[in-house]
Amino acid sequence: MRKIADSTVRRLSLYLRYLEEFETEGQATVSSEALATRGGTTSAQVRKDLSFFGSFGKRGLGYPVAELGTRLRDILGLSRRYRLVVVGAGKIGSALAQYRGFRQRGFDIVAMFDNDGEKVGKLYDGVAVRDVADLDAVLEAEQPDIGVIVVPGDQAQAVAERLVRGGVKAILNFAPAPLQVPDDVSLKNVNLALELEALSFALASQRH
Amino acid sequence: MRKIADSTVRRLSLYLRYLEEFETEGQATVSSEALATRGGTTSAQVRKDLSFFGSFGKRGLGYPVAELGTRLRDILGLSRRYRLVVVGAGKIGSALAQYRGFRQRGFDIVAMFDNDGEKVGKLYDGVAVRDVADLDAVLEAEQPDIGVIVVPGDQAQAVAERLVRGGVKAILNFAPAPLQVPDDVSLKNVNLALELEALSFALASQRH
Repeated sequence: MRKIADSTVRRLSLYLRYLEEFETEGQATVSSEALATRGGTTSAQVRKDLSFFGSFGKRGLGYPVAELGTRLRDILGLSRRYRLVVVGAGKIGSALAQYRGFRQRGFDIVAMFDNDGEKVGKLYDGVAVRDVADLDAVLEAEQPDIGVIVVPGDQAQAVAERLVRGGVKAILNFAPAPLQVPDDVSLKNVNLALELEALSFALASQRH
Repeated sequence: MRKIADSTVRRLSLYLRYLEEFETEGQATVSSEALATRGGTTSAQVRKDLSFFGSFGKRGLGYPVAELGTRLRDILGLSRRYRLVVVGAGKIGSALAQYRGFRQRGFDIVAMFDNDGEKVGKLYDGVAVRDVADLDAVLEAEQPDIGVIVVPGDQAQAVAERLVRGGVKAILNFAPAPLQVPDDVSLKNVNLALELEALSFALASQRH
């Protein structure tokens, strides 16, 4: 399969959101211009992004909302459900576990872990926090698709390596540390503190 | 001031974290190689990043940990505190409000808002959720530096516009919607669902 840029995948995700809104509103077709406006891009970009995955709609009639939505869910791998493990049950980890948006889009948290005895046993949306010592055994038993790392920076690489050894092929990393993973493992980083610091840098620069 | 790439700013944030760890451990100097290893980059890149902001350390002796840390905090605008408002008090918004890492790095949440009467009045780490109808008045009274948007996608642009009208110059957006803001407003986007969908796309592509 040809390599698709991350920025294209992000736009496909946004198009899909708007298509689902249009579907709820009962619209049968949507123009590339409308998708572009909602996706913060141009209609030429929308046509380019979508033509890449085959032929949709008819010239002048716009895209068929339901059909294009189904196709985008297929492309994005969202026609199935995914099993997640969350390592780290602090404020952010436990908020993720309770975030309904994940489940709505097909991401089910099957296990949570922490190394703090005070957190082990707590329930978040029906999922109990387990001792991180059990991680390897649970990975073998549950075969999750995605590992979410929400531990302090200095523990993140070791957790990533355990996830990879356990067969996880996709990692979402919230720890403030750059992780090394094998080429066949997909890695996305989300770092709230770094984003805030990028804003403080911008604010400080504005005053120069 | 010369334009600095976002990727450089991210690395500076990571270097600062490691310098603070080294300082805690009592190390007086650190090599560019050590910073590179911890920052997931090369020592040439470290030297390039730092030389951009002036001259540090002496050849062969490495960088002075405390001095470089202070300088990076200055560059990143972290020698002062910032005042944040959080719009949206759902699971993610309330987790952010309770996340101690923000306060530790100088980001204080001064107000939270929601349009759900059930959430108004709730306290998160001493900050009460207010009715979003009060947003404009609070912006005028509190003059916050940064606005954090944690509302549904279809409400995000309107919230951004109110923040901008209220004088906010930096926005951290968690909503799954591309926002339009004036050029003098800094915008960073964090979207958990889109990151997960990028992973599901990668997992789906692996099977092709």
